[in-house]
Amino acid sequence: MIVKSRVVIGIDPGFAITGYGLVREQENGDLEWISHGVVTTPSDWDEPKRLLELYQNLCEILNTYKPDCCAVEKLFFQKNVKTAISVGQGRGAALIAAAASELPVGEYTPLEVKQAIVGYGNADKQQVQQMVKILLGLSEIPQPDDAADALAVAICHLHSTRRNHISNYD
Amino acid sequence: MIVKSRVVIGIDPGFAITGYGLVREQENGDLEWISHGVVTTPSDWDEPKRLLELYQNLCEILNTYKPDCCAVEKLFFQKNVKTAISVGQGRGAALIAAAASELPVGEYTPLEVKQAIVGYGNADKQQVQQMVKILLGLSEIPQPDDAADALAVAICHLHSTRRNHISNYD
Repeated sequence: MIVKSRVVIGIDPGFAITGYGLVREQENGDLEWISHGVVTTPSDWDEPKRLLELYQNLCEILNTYKPDCCAVEKLFFQKNVKTAISVGQGRGAALIAAAASELPVGEYTPLEVKQAIVGYGNADKQQVQQMVKILLGLSEIPQPDDAADALAVAICHLHSTRRNHISNYD
Repeated sequence: MIVKSRVVIGIDPGFAITGYGLVREQENGDLEWISHGVVTTPSDWDEPKRLLELYQNLCEILNTYKPDCCAVEKLFFQKNVKTAISVGQGRGAALIAAAASELPVGEYTPLEVKQAIVGYGNADKQQVQQMVKILLGLSEIPQPDDAADALAVAICHLHSTRRNHISNYD
């Protein structure tokens, strides 16, 4: 199977803070870190304005780095319904931004991300972050957590699609 | 208090179906029905594309009718967290569309809508829809339910702001 160089943006969606991370898979299969960060919006802004700002920031990031595909964490484990709606709204902003850039979007559960990065689903956050650092050849664990998680989702997508195993690519 | 003529769009947010309804409050305080309908997206499209389509359809509706403000139902009562995230994503699309049109957004719980339309919070859906029909001088109850609910939210916003009672206008 021929693997072409490709860039994926991983997104760890949220309302107050959304993590993103960009990784290139080189033609020889090596992973290369490109960028990571978070989008935050002023907490004293109203909700619609914050969502628009999040959406526009993500569009700008996509426009800057022009990734080939997007990987977003699936969210099942919110503490309560109110939080779930709020995070869902932020996740909606991310998906709309991806669709507006006509990117294919892969969605992965936290379990799938852990399995792809560490090799088993019971791995803890620190183990995942440590593996992200190693896999990308970084000198430190990426900060903050949301950005490290986003890089993990990006790597998960590259591993999963390289293995031709896109079960949840709906 | 001087009441100027103004147009509000009410939105009953969802993922598969989003209701909208536009109502004008005339200078004498009378309500005038303008339009109502629903935005649906093809169920065989993937989620990001459906959200983008929803967002773009709502932007088009806002651009067509140019309302002065937007009222959106608050969602607390989803059956489960998975549904809440999905509906939250649809609600995010609606809020981003409103913010992109620089509309002030009022948010109302179902209880507040029932109280504003029927006068008490235990009213059932049929009573609310019947009152929407009467208040807007329509010959029939607006269809489908999502559009009738959206008109109810629009009327709720007009009643609440006329009474200078915008407790949840965050």
